[in-house]
Amino acid sequence: MSQFAFSLDAVDPVTGARAGRWITPHGVVETPAFMPVGTLGTVKGLLPDQLRQSGARMVLANTYHLALRPGADVVEDLGGLHRFMDWDGPILTDSGGFQVFSLAQLRELTDDRVVFRSHIDGSTLELSPERAVGIQEQLGADCIMCLDDCPAAGESAERIRVAVDRTTLWAARCRAAQRREDQALFGIVQGGIHPELRRRSAEALLPMNFPGYAVGGLSVGEAPAAMYRTLDWTVPILPPEKPRYLMGVGRPEDLLEAVCRGIDLFDCVMPTRNGRNGMAFSSRGRVRLRNAVHQRDEAPLDPECRCLACVRYSRGYLRHLFMAREMLGPILLSLHNLTFYQRLLRELRRAIIAGNAAEFRASQLARWREEP
Amino acid sequence: MSQFAFSLDAVDPVTGARAGRWITPHGVVETPAFMPVGTLGTVKGLLPDQLRQSGARMVLANTYHLALRPGADVVEDLGGLHRFMDWDGPILTDSGGFQVFSLAQLRELTDDRVVFRSHIDGSTLELSPERAVGIQEQLGADCIMCLDDCPAAGESAERIRVAVDRTTLWAARCRAAQRREDQALFGIVQGGIHPELRRRSAEALLPMNFPGYAVGGLSVGEAPAAMYRTLDWTVPILPPEKPRYLMGVGRPEDLLEAVCRGIDLFDCVMPTRNGRNGMAFSSRGRVRLRNAVHQRDEAPLDPECRCLACVRYSRGYLRHLFMAREMLGPILLSLHNLTFYQRLLRELRRAIIAGNAAEFRASQLARWREEP
Repeated sequence: MSQFAFSLDAVDPVTGARAGRWITPHGVVETPAFMPVGTLGTVKGLLPDQLRQSGARMVLANTYHLALRPGADVVEDLGGLHRFMDWDGPILTDSGGFQVFSLAQLRELTDDRVVFRSHIDGSTLELSPERAVGIQEQLGADCIMCLDDCPAAGESAERIRVAVDRTTLWAARCRAAQRREDQALFGIVQGGIHPELRRRSAEALLPMNFPGYAVGGLSVGEAPAAMYRTLDWTVPILPPEKPRYLMGVGRPEDLLEAVCRGIDLFDCVMPTRNGRNGMAFSSRGRVRLRNAVHQRDEAPLDPECRCLACVRYSRGYLRHLFMAREMLGPILLSLHNLTFYQRLLRELRRAIIAGNAAEFRASQLARWREEP
Repeated sequence: MSQFAFSLDAVDPVTGARAGRWITPHGVVETPAFMPVGTLGTVKGLLPDQLRQSGARMVLANTYHLALRPGADVVEDLGGLHRFMDWDGPILTDSGGFQVFSLAQLRELTDDRVVFRSHIDGSTLELSPERAVGIQEQLGADCIMCLDDCPAAGESAERIRVAVDRTTLWAARCRAAQRREDQALFGIVQGGIHPELRRRSAEALLPMNFPGYAVGGLSVGEAPAAMYRTLDWTVPILPPEKPRYLMGVGRPEDLLEAVCRGIDLFDCVMPTRNGRNGMAFSSRGRVRLRNAVHQRDEAPLDPECRCLACVRYSRGYLRHLFMAREMLGPILLSLHNLTFYQRLLRELRRAIIAGNAAEFRASQLARWREEP
């Protein structure tokens, strides 16, 4: 009896956007959902209670990074990822496939495996499909990912075809390697921005009957319009009864566009990374807190937001924290940006149920353009 | 009618340690009390609610640093320090006198004033006694400090005599410059480790009838035993009915020794700075979290502590955060160390009321020696 179940509460008649409900061993995730990124078993600067206050229900951690530090066996010895990081909600681990792209200078790639030279000390970490699943079983997330070959946007169609076929091969090996039954293993569709390669990838993976499918190989350097077009071609091939996860995306506008193309799950470092750098998302558009215009501004960052940063502090104080390089600046802006992302998807979900997702998307995009 | 009142609930018959109660415009502080240091209007990495959870009731901020960044007029425009940093409890601001010591290479000192070259951009900041009080009135803390001349421990007796007399002169000018009636202005006794200079300083300041007295010029390089001896000479000269504040001190053992010599108030960067560096105070002594022995340790940092770091996490996870340079490590250990300091003084206060402060001091010092 599976501990997972995915169902749809509503599908927007105009766009096809979905309001779903995903039952996992660690709780229910209402979709569309955004997963904050906790690469090393911590969403940078935030406590689990603060994450929950932001509205987050599921978080992401990274196989490659945790395998290097502190090591998957250490996490296992310390009770697994949930106990380790004190997050009792659902967790998803990326397989390390994204590091095939992001650490391209530090790895050797064959059909058998990828070998990384550690970005920390130069030691080697070998990830085969079997090892990627094994590590993820040690870490113990609810949702785990197949190892994939993720090429950059600029690569040739031939290189991307090789990546598609390698990803198919590896998906089958991951499927065969899986031992634990309390983890949902997702397949990853590759194929860059090429419709025929996306189709080739999806059609090879669908017979393997994964409990969910991710769209990988986007947000790797292509233009937003190319990403949206690729979703237009790819999502309709995926089984409607299973969750669909767009990996590593993205900006608030990307979330709106992707949900309106049928995506259910997201992760991205943007809200936390930009927050650490003093950039805030707000209901009126982006705000750069270091800007001198905020120096004596008593107003809240975003009057429509109920997060601590907005309820308790002035823009002037937040700016001061960044000018003085105080840790509280990154903490508060990470919390704010995550709260913004969670609210955006919560309101979008409501719009889907009300049948007006397209109007909601248009109204949000229009408001964000207001910012001077 | 003053908004301040200090009273003693108990005095330990053996040591003279005091359990006091200090009413301020922003609430009551039970003494002995430790003030976390929020130099730039934030205790590094912690939210006000977390500070309160640690047990802190009063915090410290710094005149010199806030005058440079963001500027006292900016803090004033943004509603004053309480509103600015969202701390509705009592606040104390140091006058900038400590920077006469800590930034000795960056300042010119005369009887009239001290001129700093900014450690940020080389611009100048002039602090006269009048200006130090003026800035502190703009910042709006509950308790403000006279500008003092704070020499290093290694200075000659003649230099320290000059500092004593300059501090006396400046104290009179600060007293005369004070305009706000809702702030308690403390005098600062200087005199290094010289009994006759401490007496000279105290006897010159007492007629000015400050509502509280600080012991400055300690924790500037002298040995702990010399500091304790200096307190033995100095504290008895101070008026028993007023709060006594030992500036910039110190280690847990220093707090025990100083309270048992009649001190009521403390501030120090040690719990937060050491916390950021991976060093924790615990009921069994100091713990270095980076130590490899903690790698797979499921035990809490301190089983007797109720802070988030101890209740929710293993030593293994805390070590991982420091090895991976994750912000959550400094956050959790700052919170833990402050919780340790607050609990220590709370328990010491109980011991004073029970009349066994000396036994409490001895038992704590013995436990801390247990750590391997």
